[in-house]
Amino acid sequence: MLRVYGTSASGNCHKVRMALEALALPYAWTEIDPGRGETRTPGFLAMNPNGKVPVLEIEPGTYLPESNAILWYLAEGTPLLPSDALQRAQVLQWLFFEQYSHEPYIAVARFLRRFHPDPESQRALAESKMSGGYRALEVMEGRLAQERFFVGGRYSIADIALYAYTHVAEDGGFDLGRLSAVRAWLDRVRTQPRYAAMPR
Amino acid sequence: MLRVYGTSASGNCHKVRMALEALALPYAWTEIDPGRGETRTPGFLAMNPNGKVPVLEIEPGTYLPESNAILWYLAEGTPLLPSDALQRAQVLQWLFFEQYSHEPYIAVARFLRRFHPDPESQRALAESKMSGGYRALEVMEGRLAQERFFVGGRYSIADIALYAYTHVAEDGGFDLGRLSAVRAWLDRVRTQPRYAAMPR
Repeated sequence: MLRVYGTSASGNCHKVRMALEALALPYAWTEIDPGRGETRTPGFLAMNPNGKVPVLEIEPGTYLPESNAILWYLAEGTPLLPSDALQRAQVLQWLFFEQYSHEPYIAVARFLRRFHPDPESQRALAESKMSGGYRALEVMEGRLAQERFFVGGRYSIADIALYAYTHVAEDGGFDLGRLSAVRAWLDRVRTQPRYAAMPR
Repeated sequence: MLRVYGTSASGNCHKVRMALEALALPYAWTEIDPGRGETRTPGFLAMNPNGKVPVLEIEPGTYLPESNAILWYLAEGTPLLPSDALQRAQVLQWLFFEQYSHEPYIAVARFLRRFHPDPESQRALAESKMSGGYRALEVMEGRLAQERFFVGGRYSIADIALYAYTHVAEDGGFDLGRLSAVRAWLDRVRTQPRYAAMPR
């Protein structure tokens, strides 16, 4: 059976849960607490030498790290990933946008403000993430003002990847108030069949 | 004809050139200078609202940003991308590792030390990138101590993506001296058929 080694409060891990639930795939979940060093044990590093969650155990001894690589692996051949070559590349375009231009600002600001043991000490660092985060949100707003979903007019893993931290961006201090297309898209994602809410 | 809007000194852009040359695909190259604001013009933002090079023009009006999405698009159906589902996901694993855990340290340290108009003012910021960069290089060293190439024992776009900034990591102040497996792999990449050197 598929097993996820993940942290429930992590958007990167929640992506994997969303895909597994949307595809109705059976899986087990092993909760990992990076704050207690559980991504730095020899056992964890044997699964992912980069020491990050999530890791998908495909079968014992076969482990796949990197949230968006896991999404692709799970979605291949399903309606969550288009078959057209250009649309597939566009899904990847948004997955790389998410990891390079979105997550390092929005997820990090959220971590520093909400999960850091001493958020006050991190205020300046968290503030430094705001302009990059808003820039990413504006790029999303531009796309979603024209399209219902990121690629091909259909719900895909591009939406799952971008939803994961966008729907909790307010934890990082981001105001989605004037981003009306983003807010409407968040609602469309929430009403997908077999939508899985993030544990709060 | 394919056209790349890119910056020759950028590793992200060089990846695309390496793949096009390795695949013997005809293409044109339009040089873009981000330092002169050329990624912020209305014309450029119409191709990539995220304002970053490279962008691949597939045909007039069809543009694909994100270097690693471009690699995937070009390599699909060629020997640079495996056909096995798990190996394809592992290629993506390394592409996401490159963009999240490698490029933000090694490429940014290189930019600050070599291309910033006032490198001295950036010294502390560049220093802050070193430990993350060495961590990424150690993860690569561990893999390459066991395997000739990153995935499936064969040269793929995972190698191209990771080569791009690793082979100029010394520009960022990184010493590859004791990373013998990384250095041997750099040599293996350099001796691939139709290898394209980065313009210096």
